[in-house]
Amino acid sequence: MAKALLLICDGLGDRPIAELGNKTPLEAASKPNLDRLAAEGECGIMDPIAPGIRAGSDTSHLAILGYDPYTYYTGRGPFEAAGIGMDVKEGDIAFRCNFTTVDDQMTIIDRRAGRINSGTEQLAAAVNGLVIDGVEVIFKESVAHRGALILRAAGLGAEITDTDPHHEGEKVLACEAIDANDAASAKTAKVVNEFVRKSYELLKDHPVNVERIKQGLQPANIILPRGAGIGPKMRSFKEEYNLNATCVAETGLINGVARYVGMKIVEVDGATGGTDSNLVEMAEAIVKELKSTDFVLCNVKGADVGGHDGAPQVKLDMIAKLDEMVGYLLANLPEDAYIVLTADHSTPCSIKDHSGDPVPIVFWGDGVRTDSCKQFDERSTAMGGINRIRGIDVMKIATQLMNTAEKFGA
Amino acid sequence: MAKALLLICDGLGDRPIAELGNKTPLEAASKPNLDRLAAEGECGIMDPIAPGIRAGSDTSHLAILGYDPYTYYTGRGPFEAAGIGMDVKEGDIAFRCNFTTVDDQMTIIDRRAGRINSGTEQLAAAVNGLVIDGVEVIFKESVAHRGALILRAAGLGAEITDTDPHHEGEKVLACEAIDANDAASAKTAKVVNEFVRKSYELLKDHPVNVERIKQGLQPANIILPRGAGIGPKMRSFKEEYNLNATCVAETGLINGVARYVGMKIVEVDGATGGTDSNLVEMAEAIVKELKSTDFVLCNVKGADVGGHDGAPQVKLDMIAKLDEMVGYLLANLPEDAYIVLTADHSTPCSIKDHSGDPVPIVFWGDGVRTDSCKQFDERSTAMGGINRIRGIDVMKIATQLMNTAEKFGA
Repeated sequence: MAKALLLICDGLGDRPIAELGNKTPLEAASKPNLDRLAAEGECGIMDPIAPGIRAGSDTSHLAILGYDPYTYYTGRGPFEAAGIGMDVKEGDIAFRCNFTTVDDQMTIIDRRAGRINSGTEQLAAAVNGLVIDGVEVIFKESVAHRGALILRAAGLGAEITDTDPHHEGEKVLACEAIDANDAASAKTAKVVNEFVRKSYELLKDHPVNVERIKQGLQPANIILPRGAGIGPKMRSFKEEYNLNATCVAETGLINGVARYVGMKIVEVDGATGGTDSNLVEMAEAIVKELKSTDFVLCNVKGADVGGHDGAPQVKLDMIAKLDEMVGYLLANLPEDAYIVLTADHSTPCSIKDHSGDPVPIVFWGDGVRTDSCKQFDERSTAMGGINRIRGIDVMKIATQLMNTAEKFGA
Repeated sequence: MAKALLLICDGLGDRPIAELGNKTPLEAASKPNLDRLAAEGECGIMDPIAPGIRAGSDTSHLAILGYDPYTYYTGRGPFEAAGIGMDVKEGDIAFRCNFTTVDDQMTIIDRRAGRINSGTEQLAAAVNGLVIDGVEVIFKESVAHRGALILRAAGLGAEITDTDPHHEGEKVLACEAIDANDAASAKTAKVVNEFVRKSYELLKDHPVNVERIKQGLQPANIILPRGAGIGPKMRSFKEEYNLNATCVAETGLINGVARYVGMKIVEVDGATGGTDSNLVEMAEAIVKELKSTDFVLCNVKGADVGGHDGAPQVKLDMIAKLDEMVGYLLANLPEDAYIVLTADHSTPCSIKDHSGDPVPIVFWGDGVRTDSCKQFDERSTAMGGINRIRGIDVMKIATQLMNTAEKFGA
């Protein structure tokens, strides 16, 4: 059976940039291997969700993997929690959280608790396992000041407001149901407020914080949940496509989406999520995985960082690294492997955030209707044979090329 | 009022083929009349159902005629039954069936009962009109060992398994509801099992079979239903578009779809469904029909046969015949007639089955926005003015060109 790599370059799409001669970074870069895929493959542009929709990385990955985000995405929480290895179940209410420093009036002193980088495991242990109003509390620390919270009980809702005011000097916000008549979410809000109160009570005099204060560091004396979402009922990737799949990614959020649909997660030591990431090491991991599995999803983060920072040169540098990565893949992937190369959204340097512009996409491998497109960039691929598709179409096209899709009808 | 011909070349789309110089059969063929349509018309590519979806001929024709197959298609049975002239009603459970040979242990000896080609009308009469558990049984023989079954009663379901194991040497399967809690389908399954049992009882000593055994032929001593579907509630083509329509096709399945939506069916003597089919005779029938009706759907089957057989030369031969057919049509159709030329799906010679690749489409006739596309093939039309549409869009575009579509809004 044919194998496939879906390589998603985070935030790679861009807009014309004056200092690049009104070219996009992809148009301005030298990238012989990416262009080889375009020249030999079938090209087009892709709206991750729909034309003009500014996609997040989570909603875009859901769509590209074939799960309509309007059905399955209720908030970032479940995928953040899954991304740090928590076992999110259908109906769980999950949140991303910050360890934060507050004063005794609940005013935010430091949203990131002095970017605390040790002791959070002990702090997490102090709140993990609580039961509030019959609701099971599961908390796990993540990188630095970050963590994730799961509230588990029947009949909870996720339509609630955040507790984090997002600015120092403001008070911790009370969590509320967005719709006052939504009893399930009101129940969750009540538990969240109690959890926040208890976290302060349990953490303010915790030995880790006593020691931090002694050292002149901000104490991580409260936990503020945000980004609530309810664990969606989703068919696994294996159920959906009958393919065994591995995810090689750099961020918890993407690993979370992949883990939630049952993919194997492979962590690569040199994958940093930044522009210093070792993409060839990621490529080696992909090649190794495809020896024993059918499908690999890979997300490379760096270009998105350049976009958010408004730094075209960072994008150019990342494109050079991507090109080297694709060169390695072309030389080392199994002969029958398909490559689908695209981005999860555009992050134009001029916007410093995700935009709703479509992204280039190429399907490369046996049997594709090679078109006249010779370059992998936004405007060249727009002239390709694929025309314009949506994220939700990508796996359908990939699996029909792999000849693993079922026929509908006779 | 303008008239239109929707000419669907079954399975015509393909992928690049090495022995044709990496061209598709359409790209490799000489086809001046098809190319004339492309040059004078408005071209694009079309996903019969959606990008990447491997469409059947039935689901694709439903979509192209404007009926969403995800709503209306529950199985092949209703359209097979309608295709042999049975009057399938909403809520009927319909099946395709084989006359089969079994031994007295219900082991399949010959799935096609020695490809029986006479006497099936008498055998059908023996089971037609039975009433089982209050359910009316309507059975009709078709070509050779084939037939169709309708079970008619209120409250039946079609979510059931097949009785035909599809292999000689295996036992007849018990029909079961796919979901054990689905009482409507469980009722159907019980009736199907009783029908199969009764068919054996009534056919095993039937004079037709006594005579066959005497002649050393396999007896058609049981009937095995499969492909269950429930007769969908659908608006007729006339209700939907206010057009009188005729279908000129070569297969029961396409005639079945057309008949189900109320089209007149015209059978053409020389239309064989194979590569020896007389397409000019079909064209003559189309020209004749368009004198008195508004719309003709024509399906020509041969290219699909070439694809399933992995035979590019068969496709090339069929394209030559199609070109001759279109030449006749261009010379003889009423002046105000539109032609919509497309395929119902790709059947690449390399896959030998339907793929999810889009197909070329051209809208030809008065007022179309002629584009720069000069050739009717997969990759040329991908550059056309239509861009990429779906099957469900085709009748909307055709009827707005015909100026018969209603305006939505003011």
